[in-house]
Amino acid sequence: MKGKAWSGRFQEETDKFFEDFSESVSFDYVLALYEIQASRTYARALKKIGILSEEELSSLETALNDIARDIKEGRFSFSKELEDVHMNIERALYERVGEVAYKIHTGRSRNEQVVTDLRLYLREEGLNLKELMLRFIEAILTKAEQNLDVVFPGFTHLQHAQPVLFAHWITTYAEGLRWHFERLLDWEKRNNLCPLGSSAFAGCGFPLDRTFIAKDLGFDGPLLHSVYAVSSRDFVTEFLFILSLIMLDLSRLAEELILWISPEFSFIDLPDRFCTGSSLMPQKKNPDAAELIRGKASSVLGNLFQVLSLLKNLPLSYNRDLQEDKPPLFQAIKTTKTSLLMATLLIEGLVIKKERLTQLLKEGYLLATELADYLVTKGIPFREAHHITGKIVRFAEDQGKKLEELTLEEFKKFSTIIEEDVYEWLAVEHALLRREIPGGTGPQTVKTYIQSLKSQIETWKAGLKSP
Amino acid sequence: MKGKAWSGRFQEETDKFFEDFSESVSFDYVLALYEIQASRTYARALKKIGILSEEELSSLETALNDIARDIKEGRFSFSKELEDVHMNIERALYERVGEVAYKIHTGRSRNEQVVTDLRLYLREEGLNLKELMLRFIEAILTKAEQNLDVVFPGFTHLQHAQPVLFAHWITTYAEGLRWHFERLLDWEKRNNLCPLGSSAFAGCGFPLDRTFIAKDLGFDGPLLHSVYAVSSRDFVTEFLFILSLIMLDLSRLAEELILWISPEFSFIDLPDRFCTGSSLMPQKKNPDAAELIRGKASSVLGNLFQVLSLLKNLPLSYNRDLQEDKPPLFQAIKTTKTSLLMATLLIEGLVIKKERLTQLLKEGYLLATELADYLVTKGIPFREAHHITGKIVRFAEDQGKKLEELTLEEFKKFSTIIEEDVYEWLAVEHALLRREIPGGTGPQTVKTYIQSLKSQIETWKAGLKSP
Amino acid sequence: MKGKAWSGRFQEETDKFFEDFSESVSFDYVLALYEIQASRTYARALKKIGILSEEELSSLETALNDIARDIKEGRFSFSKELEDVHMNIERALYERVGEVAYKIHTGRSRNEQVVTDLRLYLREEGLNLKELMLRFIEAILTKAEQNLDVVFPGFTHLQHAQPVLFAHWITTYAEGLRWHFERLLDWEKRNNLCPLGSSAFAGCGFPLDRTFIAKDLGFDGPLLHSVYAVSSRDFVTEFLFILSLIMLDLSRLAEELILWISPEFSFIDLPDRFCTGSSLMPQKKNPDAAELIRGKASSVLGNLFQVLSLLKNLPLSYNRDLQEDKPPLFQAIKTTKTSLLMATLLIEGLVIKKERLTQLLKEGYLLATELADYLVTKGIPFREAHHITGKIVRFAEDQGKKLEELTLEEFKKFSTIIEEDVYEWLAVEHALLRREIPGGTGPQTVKTYIQSLKSQIETWKAGLKSP
Amino acid sequence: MKGKAWSGRFQEETDKFFEDFSESVSFDYVLALYEIQASRTYARALKKIGILSEEELSSLETALNDIARDIKEGRFSFSKELEDVHMNIERALYERVGEVAYKIHTGRSRNEQVVTDLRLYLREEGLNLKELMLRFIEAILTKAEQNLDVVFPGFTHLQHAQPVLFAHWITTYAEGLRWHFERLLDWEKRNNLCPLGSSAFAGCGFPLDRTFIAKDLGFDGPLLHSVYAVSSRDFVTEFLFILSLIMLDLSRLAEELILWISPEFSFIDLPDRFCTGSSLMPQKKNPDAAELIRGKASSVLGNLFQVLSLLKNLPLSYNRDLQEDKPPLFQAIKTTKTSLLMATLLIEGLVIKKERLTQLLKEGYLLATELADYLVTKGIPFREAHHITGKIVRFAEDQGKKLEELTLEEFKKFSTIIEEDVYEWLAVEHALLRREIPGGTGPQTVKTYIQSLKSQIETWKAGLKSP
Repeated sequence: MKGKAWSGRFQEETDKFFEDFSESVSFDYVLALYEIQASRTYARALKKIGILSEEELSSLETALNDIARDIKEGRFSFSKELEDVHMNIERALYERVGEVAYKIHTGRSRNEQVVTDLRLYLREEGLNLKELMLRFIEAILTKAEQNLDVVFPGFTHLQHAQPVLFAHWITTYAEGLRWHFERLLDWEKRNNLCPLGSSAFAGCGFPLDRTFIAKDLGFDGPLLHSVYAVSSRDFVTEFLFILSLIMLDLSRLAEELILWISPEFSFIDLPDRFCTGSSLMPQKKNPDAAELIRGKASSVLGNLFQVLSLLKNLPLSYNRDLQEDKPPLFQAIKTTKTSLLMATLLIEGLVIKKERLTQLLKEGYLLATELADYLVTKGIPFREAHHITGKIVRFAEDQGKKLEELTLEEFKKFSTIIEEDVYEWLAVEHALLRREIPGGTGPQTVKTYIQSLKSQIETWKAGLKSP
Repeated sequence: MKGKAWSGRFQEETDKFFEDFSESVSFDYVLALYEIQASRTYARALKKIGILSEEELSSLETALNDIARDIKEGRFSFSKELEDVHMNIERALYERVGEVAYKIHTGRSRNEQVVTDLRLYLREEGLNLKELMLRFIEAILTKAEQNLDVVFPGFTHLQHAQPVLFAHWITTYAEGLRWHFERLLDWEKRNNLCPLGSSAFAGCGFPLDRTFIAKDLGFDGPLLHSVYAVSSRDFVTEFLFILSLIMLDLSRLAEELILWISPEFSFIDLPDRFCTGSSLMPQKKNPDAAELIRGKASSVLGNLFQVLSLLKNLPLSYNRDLQEDKPPLFQAIKTTKTSLLMATLLIEGLVIKKERLTQLLKEGYLLATELADYLVTKGIPFREAHHITGKIVRFAEDQGKKLEELTLEEFKKFSTIIEEDVYEWLAVEHALLRREIPGGTGPQTVKTYIQSLKSQIETWKAGLKSP
Repeated sequence: MKGKAWSGRFQEETDKFFEDFSESVSFDYVLALYEIQASRTYARALKKIGILSEEELSSLETALNDIARDIKEGRFSFSKELEDVHMNIERALYERVGEVAYKIHTGRSRNEQVVTDLRLYLREEGLNLKELMLRFIEAILTKAEQNLDVVFPGFTHLQHAQPVLFAHWITTYAEGLRWHFERLLDWEKRNNLCPLGSSAFAGCGFPLDRTFIAKDLGFDGPLLHSVYAVSSRDFVTEFLFILSLIMLDLSRLAEELILWISPEFSFIDLPDRFCTGSSLMPQKKNPDAAELIRGKASSVLGNLFQVLSLLKNLPLSYNRDLQEDKPPLFQAIKTTKTSLLMATLLIEGLVIKKERLTQLLKEGYLLATELADYLVTKGIPFREAHHITGKIVRFAEDQGKKLEELTLEEFKKFSTIIEEDVYEWLAVEHALLRREIPGGTGPQTVKTYIQSLKSQIETWKAGLKSP
Repeated sequence: MKGKAWSGRFQEETDKFFEDFSESVSFDYVLALYEIQASRTYARALKKIGILSEEELSSLETALNDIARDIKEGRFSFSKELEDVHMNIERALYERVGEVAYKIHTGRSRNEQVVTDLRLYLREEGLNLKELMLRFIEAILTKAEQNLDVVFPGFTHLQHAQPVLFAHWITTYAEGLRWHFERLLDWEKRNNLCPLGSSAFAGCGFPLDRTFIAKDLGFDGPLLHSVYAVSSRDFVTEFLFILSLIMLDLSRLAEELILWISPEFSFIDLPDRFCTGSSLMPQKKNPDAAELIRGKASSVLGNLFQVLSLLKNLPLSYNRDLQEDKPPLFQAIKTTKTSLLMATLLIEGLVIKKERLTQLLKEGYLLATELADYLVTKGIPFREAHHITGKIVRFAEDQGKKLEELTLEEFKKFSTIIEEDVYEWLAVEHALLRREIPGGTGPQTVKTYIQSLKSQIETWKAGLKSP
C-alpha cells in the first residue's frame, strides 16, 4: 500500500514530470503546523463519535506533537512524491503509529483540509500584519509629534498649494493604515469560520460535532454551507486586496520620500544605513529602500490579479486550479510584511531639513488663498476674491515680489477694500491657526488628532495580546 | 469674468484640444444631483457662520432646486468648456442668482467636492446594488425550494464526485452573495463619512460646523483628516473590489449554466427569450446571456486594476490622475448591476431536466465514498477502505457494472467483511440522509439552511427601506 | 419575416432586458464602414461562383454605397433590436433592395464578419497611430535639436548622476517610440490576413475564391485555418499590448514633466494654455495635461488586462464572451491617440529654463565619476579609484566645497598621483566630450543620432502615404 | 577595502534588515554565467583600449572560466551581503586575481550589466522556449494525422454547430503557437542588441569598441541610445507578453481537455499517469494536469501585469524599482516552459473515443446549415433558407426525429422545392467534402495544412541548431 493514497483504481504509476509539475508541497509546507493542529482536532472529533478509541486518539496526538516538533526543529523532510502537505503529514503519521493513522482521514477530504489550514494560517498572518501595521502607525505618529513645529508646503498636482504642518501631512499615512486595520478586523470575521466537516463538498457522512471542531480550533463557528466552504476563495482575495491597499499607500509614501530626498527637493535626509551607492559613480547615495517598496507594490498587485483571474469561470466545487492561489498569497504576505517594516525603519530614520522647509515657505505664493479669504471677510464673493487674487499673484510674480512684499498701494490697485490688516493674513502661522477645524491643519487640531489615534492604537495593541 | 473660474493668473486661453482632453463633465455629470445636494448643505453651513445671509441662502436653495429639476427633466445642458460637474453647477447658479453664487465656494475646493459627491453617489449605488443582490439571492432560494427533490451529481475537477441536492449546489451562489452583502455593509461604514470641510486638503479656513454638514448629508460624521479626505480613493477601490467578487461568482455560475445547457450535459434548459440564434446555423440556440456575464467579469476586473494601478506611486495630496477613477467606477457599477439582473432572470427562467439527472445518478460511481464509509463502519481504517473501494470500482468498470450490480460474492473477493447490508449504502437517498450535518447536503439540513437565509434576507430587505 | 434573422427555430420573443444587455451595436457601429467594405467584397465573391447575378451584385453594390454615404453623413440610425452592426447593415440592405439582400449572407457567419471588420478597422487605426507616433518623435527630435547646447543633470534613482545633453535625455522617448513603431510593423503582418471565407469556423461550404477576397480587401492573403480565424483574438491583444507600451512611455515622460515643472525642480515651464488653475487657490498653475496622461496609462493597462483575462479558459471556437473585446479596444485606441497628441503638444510647448540647469550643474558632485576615471588613466584600478573618489566627495561635502574648489594639496591627501591636470577633468564639457561613443552623450554623437532617426522617420512617413 | 564596493562616501554600515530587503542575488544568481560571459567580453574591450594588459586580460579570463566552472558544478556560494550577481562575481574575481579584478569595472555600471545579462539570458530562454513550442506543435500535428478519420462536433457557444475533422479542430492550437513563434522571432531582433558600453546611462567615458563588444557577445549590434539602453524594459515586457499569449492558448486547450474528459462529454481519455485521484472518493480520476495549466495561465498574466504596472510613472533613467522585474520574469518563464511540456505530454497521451464521437454526430442538428445551403442551391435566398430550416429543425425536434429521418412529404410542408436529393446533403461526409476551401475542414485541405505546417516546423527546427 505504498505510493499514492488514492492509487486503488489506478493502473499506471504517476508520470515523474507530472509529479513535479503538480506537487504543491514545495510551497504549501508552510501550512504544516496548521495541518497538524487541524488533524488533532479532527481526531478528537472522530473519537467523540466512536471512530477512534481513547488510546488511538492518544497515540495520534502524541505522534502529531512529535511531527510538529520535528518540523519546528527543521528535522522533517517533505516529499514531492506525496504531493502536498496533507499527504506528507498523513504518511508521517503512518510511519509513527501504523494503521491507526489511516483512520484519521475518515470522511475527510483535502478540499476541506486546505481551506481549514489556510484560514488558520491567515489568522496568524493577520495578527503578524496587524502588529506591523501598528508599529508603522506609531512610527508615523512619533515622527509627527517630534516635528510638530515643522511647516510643510502642502502640494496638489506636485505644485505648492497651502502650508500645512508636516505632522498633518505625514499622518495621512497613519490614517490610511488605520482604515486598513479596520478592514482587517472585518475580514477576520469572515475568515474565522471553520470549513472542517464539509468533506469533499457534500458534508461529512459521519455525524461529526462541527461546533466542537470549530471551537477547538478557535474559530467563531462552522461554515454552514459545505459546497461554499471548499469552493470559495473570497477569504484569500479579500486578504490580498487589503495587502494591495497597504502596498499602494506605501508606494505613495515611498514616492514622496524619493522626491523629498532628491537634491531638488532636499526636504529630508535618510541615514546612510538605509541607502546604497553606485558601483560606478562615487558620489551617489540612493534611496533604494523606498524605490524597492514602490516597486514591490506592483508585485502585490500582480499577486491579487493572479488570484482574481484564477477564479474567473471556474465551475463548482473544487478544481485543481485553486492550488495556484497559494504561491501568490504567500509571496504577497512576505512582500507586504517586509515592506511595512522597511517603511517603518525609513520613517523612524528620516531627518527633516527644517531650515530648508522654512526657507521654501517664504517663496512661492502659498498664502494666496489667505488673501482671497481675507477679501471674503471684507464682503467680496469668493469667486471674485479668487479672481482678484489671481491678478495680484501674477502682478507680484512679474515684479519678482512675494505677496507680503507688495505695498498697500499696490494691493489697492486690485481692490480698494484691502487695508493694512491684510499683512496679518499673509503669515504662515495665521493660515495654520485659521484651520483649527476638525480634520484641519491647525496645530491644536493636529495634536488632538495624534492623541486620539494613539489611544486607538493602544486599544488595538491591547487586543492583539489577549487571544 | 467669463471663461474659467480660475483664470485670474493666466495669460492664455486654454487650448481647445487640451480642453477636450481634460474635461470630465462628459462622465462626471452623473454626480450632478449629489453636487447639488452637497452645495445646498454647504450653503447652509456658510449661513451658520455668517458668510451667507438668510435671504442669500434662500435664493441659493431655490436655484439649486431649480437646477436639480432641470437635470432630472433632461433640460440641463452641460458644457465641456466648464470642465466638470462642479463648475457647471456653479455657473448655472450664477446664471440664476448672480453674484451670490460666487459666495458658495468660499473656502471650498473641488478636491473635497468630488469625493463628497462620489461618496453620496456610491451610497445610493450601494443601495441599488444591495437590492439587486437580495433579488438574486431570493431567486436562487426560490429555485432551490422548488426543486428540493432534485438530486445532482456533485462535481469536483468537473468529474462526478458525490450526489448532492441541486438545492444545495445552487445555493452556493446565494451563500457567496450573502457574504458580499456583508462586505458591502462593512464598506458602508467607511464610505459614509464626510470629506466636506477639508477644503483643498488643509482644512477650511472658515470655522464651518463639520458635524452639522455631515449630519445634513446623512453621513455618520466628518472625516477627521483633511489630507486623507482628498487623497484617498480607498472607498472607491473597496467598492470596486466587492463588485469584482460579485462578478467572479456570477462568472462561475455562468460557466455552469453554459455547461449544463450544452448538449453533452443537458441538465437544464433556458427559455428562448434569453437565448439567441446563429445568423448562419439555423438549429442553434445559444446561451449568450450567460456567456456575456462571464465575459463582463473581465471588464470589472479590468476596471479594478485600472484604479489600483492609477493610485500607485501618486504623491499626496490631490493629483489630476485621480480624475481617471470615475470612468472605470461608473462602468463597473453598470456592468455589475445589469449582470446581476441578467443572472437573476436566468435563474428564475431555468428549467431543470430532472429525468436526465435521475438517469445520470445511476451511472458512474458516485457512491464509491459510501462504500468506503461502509467499510469504515465495519472497522476498516479509512485509507485501507478507500484502497479496497478503488479496486472494486476498477473491477466493476472492467465488468461494465455499476457498484450496486456487483454480487455479494464479487464484493467479498475484495473484502470478506462485506455483507448484504452493503446494498442499503449504495443508494443515493442513503448517501444524502447520512449528511444531515450542519452545512451538509442532508435534505432537512438544506431546508433549514434555506429558511435561515430567507429570514436573514427579510431582515436585510427591511433595513433597505428604513433610511 | 421581421424580428431576428435567426428567429426560425425560436418560439418566444427576445426578452427586452436581455436585448439591451446583449446588444453590441451601441459600440460596434464604429465598424460599419468596414462591414460594408467586406460585404461588397463578399458579394463580388458570391457573384464569381454564381450565387449572385451581375445585376444582383450591381444593385447590392449601389445599396452598400448608399448606406455608406448615409453613415458618413450621420443619417443612418442603428437599431439595438437588430443586435449588432452586421444585422443592422443586412437589414438596411433588405430595405433598399429587397430579397436579394438575403443572398449576401450565403455561407457567411457573423463569427468571421466581426474579425474581418476588426482587422480592417485596426489596419486603419494602426495607420492613424503611426502618424501620431511619428509626429511625437519629430516633436522630440525638434525640441532636442533646438536645445543642443543645454546640459542636463542626468538622474538615476532621482539623484544627480552624470551630466548629459538634454537632447540626449529627451530623445530616450523618441527611441522608445521608434521601437514601438517597429512592433506595429510586425503586428501589421499578422493583422493583415483575411478571415473571410472561414464561415462559422468550419470553412465556407461554397467554393469561394479566398485569394480574391483577401486581395480585394487589401489583405496580404487569407488566413489558412478557419477555426483559428474566428477563435483567436491575438491580433487584438498584440495591438493592445503595443498601445500599453506607448502609454507606459508617455507615463514616464509625463512623470518627468510634472517633476520638472514643480517649483523644486523648476527645469521647465509649460504654456498657460496647457495648464489649469485651482477653483480655490488663486496662485495655482497645474500640469494637468501631464497628470492625465499618466493616469490614462492605467486605463490602457486595464483595457489590456480585461481582454487577456477574457480569453483565459475559453473553449473553441466562437463564444459570445468575445464581444467584450471591443469596448476596451476602442477605448484604448482613443485614449492612446489623444494622449500621444497631448504629449506632442506638451513637448512642442515646453520651455527649458537653461540658466537654472546651468546653475544646477555646478552644484552636487556630478563629475565624481570623471575624477575616478582620471585616476584610472593614472593607473589606479577602477574600484580603488572609485573608493578614493568617494572619500574625496565626502571630504568636499564636509568642507562645503565643490570638487573643483578643492586644492591640489587637498586632493593629494587622498592620492598623491593627482596632479594639476585633474582640473581639466572637472569640467562638464570635458565629461561630455569623453562620451563620443556610439549611443553616448557626446555632442557629435547625439547630433548624429538625431539625424539618423530623422531620416528613418522620413522613410516611414513616405511609407505611410503610399498604400 | 572590504564591505560594499561603493562604500567610499558612506559613514554607516548597511542596516542588516535593509540588506536582506534589497538584495537580489537570491534570484538574479541565475544570470551568473551571462555576467561572466559579458565580463569576459568587457575585459577584452578594455584590453583593446589599453586599460588592461595582455597578461591582465589573460589572468582575468582564466579566473572567469574558473568561476564559471565552480558555478556550473554547484561549488560557488553567493553572498547576500554582496547584494547582487554583479558584485558577487566581482568579489570572486578579486579573490582569485587580486587588484586587477578592480580594473574590469572601469567605466562600467551595473545599470548596463543587468540589462546585458538579461538580454543574453532571454536569448537563451527564447531558444529553449522555441524548442518546446515546436515540440508542442509537432505533438498536435502528429495526433491530428493519426486521427484524420475522426469527425468532431464543432462547437460555438459550447453548442453543437457543424461537423469538422478532429484534426482541424485540434490544429487550431498549432496554428496559434505558430504565430507566437513568429512573435518570438520578431522579439529576438529587438532583444539581440547590446547595451554594454552605455555605462550608467551617459555612455562610457573610455573609447570602447562597442561594435566589437556586441559581436563578441553574439549580438546583432550595439544599442545606439545609452539612456534608453538602461531605462527600457520593453524587451522584458514583450517577452512576458508572448508568454502570456502562449499560456492563454494553453488555458483554452486545457479547458477543452477538461470538458472532453468529463463523463458528460466523454470524448477522450487521458492516461492514468497524468491524472490523480481523490484522497476521499475512491472512484475519482481527475485531469489535474489540465486544471493546473489553466490555473497557471493566471500566474503568467499576473507576472505580466506586475512588470507593466512597475514601469508606469518611472522617471528616467535607472531606478531600483526595476530590480523587481526579475522575479516575475523568471517565474513566468518557468511556468510557461513546464506548462508547454505538460500540455505536450497530454496531447501525446490523449486517446480519442471515436465511437462516442461518431454516435454524437448522429444526434442534434449539426447539418442544419447544410439543409439551408441546399435550399440556396435551389435558388432560395440564404436568409429565407435559414428561416425555413429553422422551422424544419423545430418541427423535427418536436417530432423527436433527426433531420434525415423526416420524410420528403414532411420536408415539402416547409418548402416544395425540396426533393429526394436533400438526403445526400444530410450526411456528415458531404458536409466535410463541401469545405475543401483554403482554411476549411475538407479532408484534403486539412491534410495539406498539416503538411505545410510540418515543413515550416522543419525549417524552424533546422534554424534552432545552427547558431
